[in-house]
Formats: sequence, structure tokens, C-alpha cells
Amino acid sequence: MTPQRHLDEELGLLKEKLFTMASLAETMIHKAIRSLVERDETLFQVVEEQEKKVNHLEIEIDELCLKLLALKQPMATDLRFITSAMKINSELERIGDLAVNITQRVAVLIKQPQLKPLIDIPRMAELTQKMVKDSLDAFIQKDADLARSVLTRDDEVDGLKGQIFRELLTFMLSDQSTIPRSLELILVSRHLERIGDHATNIAEDVVYLVLGKDIRHHIETERNK
Amino acid sequence: MTPQRHLDEELGLLKEKLFTMASLAETMIHKAIRSLVERDETLFQVVEEQEKKVNHLEIEIDELCLKLLALKQPMATDLRFITSAMKINSELERIGDLAVNITQRVAVLIKQPQLKPLIDIPRMAELTQKMVKDSLDAFIQKDADLARSVLTRDDEVDGLKGQIFRELLTFMLSDQSTIPRSLELILVSRHLERIGDHATNIAEDVVYLVLGKDIRHHIETERNK
Repeated sequence: MTPQRHLDEELGLLKEKLFTMASLAETMIHKAIRSLVERDETLFQVVEEQEKKVNHLEIEIDELCLKLLALKQPMATDLRFITSAMKINSELERIGDLAVNITQRVAVLIKQPQLKPLIDIPRMAELTQKMVKDSLDAFIQKDADLARSVLTRDDEVDGLKGQIFRELLTFMLSDQSTIPRSLELILVSRHLERIGDHATNIAEDVVYLVLGKDIRHHIETERNK
Repeated sequence: MTPQRHLDEELGLLKEKLFTMASLAETMIHKAIRSLVERDETLFQVVEEQEKKVNHLEIEIDELCLKLLALKQPMATDLRFITSAMKINSELERIGDLAVNITQRVAVLIKQPQLKPLIDIPRMAELTQKMVKDSLDAFIQKDADLARSVLTRDDEVDGLKGQIFRELLTFMLSDQSTIPRSLELILVSRHLERIGDHATNIAEDVVYLVLGKDIRHHIETERNK
């Protein structure tokens, strides 16, 4: 087997592991919000188990990347792919953490009567879950357009976060008995916002990887001024 | 010059850049909280200017790391140092973002009368600022003990966050006119908490780098069970 073919095989394994990790992270978001909507505390345990898997995968992926960098001394495109994989790995792990954080808020919330039917929070969760999926797909398929579409959707997530905040503020102002529950729901929406931010970070890395353009801080635009 | 000596020089440059970035991030936290305590909106601009510098440094550091990985093909310790530097680079950039987020909350807060004298928030800011400084020093000096001390301090930060939350909840429950301001202050404390988390991530990386032990998910403890 040629060294390049051997490297390609190892890169295939790396992609597989990242894909598994992303799927776990998506499921965790979904389950965390389901535990809120259905007031089902049995789902906490499921999310926790999945977090352990994600944590192990993070270490495995990190070690695989270091091994590839050390032993295969990859050049140019492969090098950048591996260093991006290391960053994406951290992002996915934090998404998993945030799903766990959501279940911690839900644990407090479902001990109290339901404040209101939930519409925007599940919508926000769906959006961010899809952003995670698409950002990872964009990475694996080196699809800059798909990555850019993730960036656009982050504005929608931020819009929903603002809407949720204003609605809950109205609740709190009109009935102070709703304050503790409203606060917990605001925190849930902030956790979802951060999940969207992590997916955005992944998507920005992908655009950089594919187009060689760093769009993280719109330096491009600044330079063209 | 030997290739190793040349690499050592480049690594020195990398350390310098990271050090500059960390100093900027520390100052940004300090200034953001000063803008709150002194109700001084002229500081927002300063923080924004510094964020631009941090963003440029992030890209420079990333490019330097990629160059070192591609051209110097470093082995073992140096390789791990460079990949850690790439991760730490992202953490520092996000700390800068969070300082900007704090000034955005302060901008809303200082349009309204002061809710209460601030004690715990400045204390929390001081703690996290020191955590950022020490985690980066620990990285540059490869000092695992200093890194571990950062991890311990994160519990103190979380404690303060809880205390701030409970105090502001009491305010909101006793006087609903305080709700909007209390919410903003809670968000400031959450931003500080996240800064502490980023410093913790850096410190965990340092322990890994120095001791070769991954303490990110206490796998060590799990394996010894």
C-alpha cells in the first residue's frame, strides 16, 4: 500500500469517528429537549450515557489526529484537514456538554407546573440540531455552500433567542410566581444558542478549509474596504 | 542554524504571540467590568478595539502553527505543543468575544439606575482574569501544578455564579421593577463563568501536555475504578 493510500484510509477512519460523534451530539440535543417537552426524566440518564461516549470519542479522535500528524507527516490539504478535525472535535464535545446542561435545567423545571406550551424552544432545538448535522456533513463532503448555509441559520437562532427572552420577560413582569421557571427557560435557550455558535464555528472552519479564506472575523471584508 | 534551533526560534515567536493575546484578553475582561462598576461607556470602544487585535492575532497564530506543522514536521513534544497552541488560540479568542458580550450587557445596564453596589461580580471577574493569566503562564512554562490550581479555582467561580443568581432572584421576587436589570446582571455573571470555563479548558490542555495524562473527562479515575 502506498503511504498516501494508507493515510487516506486513516483519514476515512477519522471521518467515521467524527460522524459518530456528531450523530451522538445531535441525538443528545433532541433527547434533552424531548425531556423538557414531555417532562420525562428517564431521558436524563440516556443523555448522560451518551455524553460519556462523546467524551471517550473526543480523546480517541485527538489521539488519532496526533498520530497522523506525527507518523504520516501530511502536507497541505491533509494537514489542514487534520488540524480542522481537532478543532471540530472540541466543538462537538462542547455541544454534548451543553445538552447535559439543558437536562440539568429541565430537572429543575419539571418539578414545577408547566409555565406555558413550548413552541419556540423546540423550534430552536430543531434548528441547532440541523446546524450541527449540516456543519459536519459540510466538513466531510468539503461543501462550502452547505457550510455557508449554516452561518445564515445562526441569525435565525439568535432571533428566536431574543423572542424567547422578551416573551419570558413579559411573563415575569406580569406574574412574579413565574420568575424561577422563566429564568430556567431562558437558560435553556442560551444553551441552545451556544450550540448554534459551536455549529457556526465548525462551519467557519469548513469554509476556511475548502476555500482557503478565513471568514472568522470578516477580515476579507475589512481588507477590501 | 540547525533545523531544531530554527524550530525553537519559531516556537519562541509562537509563545510571544499567545502571550500578547492572553494579555489582551485579560485587559478586556478588566475593562469590561470596569465599564460596569464605573458606569463608563467610553471603555466599550477600547474593548472593541482590543477585540479586533485579538481576532487578527488568532489568524496569525493559526497560520504560524500550520506553517510549523507543514514545514518543520515537528515530532513528539513539539508537535503536541503546537496542536495545543492551536486549541488555546481558539479559547483566548472566545474569551475576548465574551468580554465584548459583557460590554453589550453593560450598555443596557448603565441606562438604568444602579440596582445595588457590585461586589461579587467584580470578584468573579478578578478570579477569571487571573485564571486566564495563570493558564497561559502554565502553558508557556509547562507548569502542571499551576495549571491544576486553575482547575480548582473554577469551582470558586461557579460558587460565586450561584450566589449571584440567588441574590438577584431575591431582588426580582421582592420588587418586579428590578427584573430587567437583574437579568442583565445574571447574564454578565454567566459570561464570566464561561470565561472561567475557557481558562479551565486551557489548563486541562496544559496538564495533558506536561503529564501526558488526559484529565479532560477524568478518564483516569474511571479506569482506576
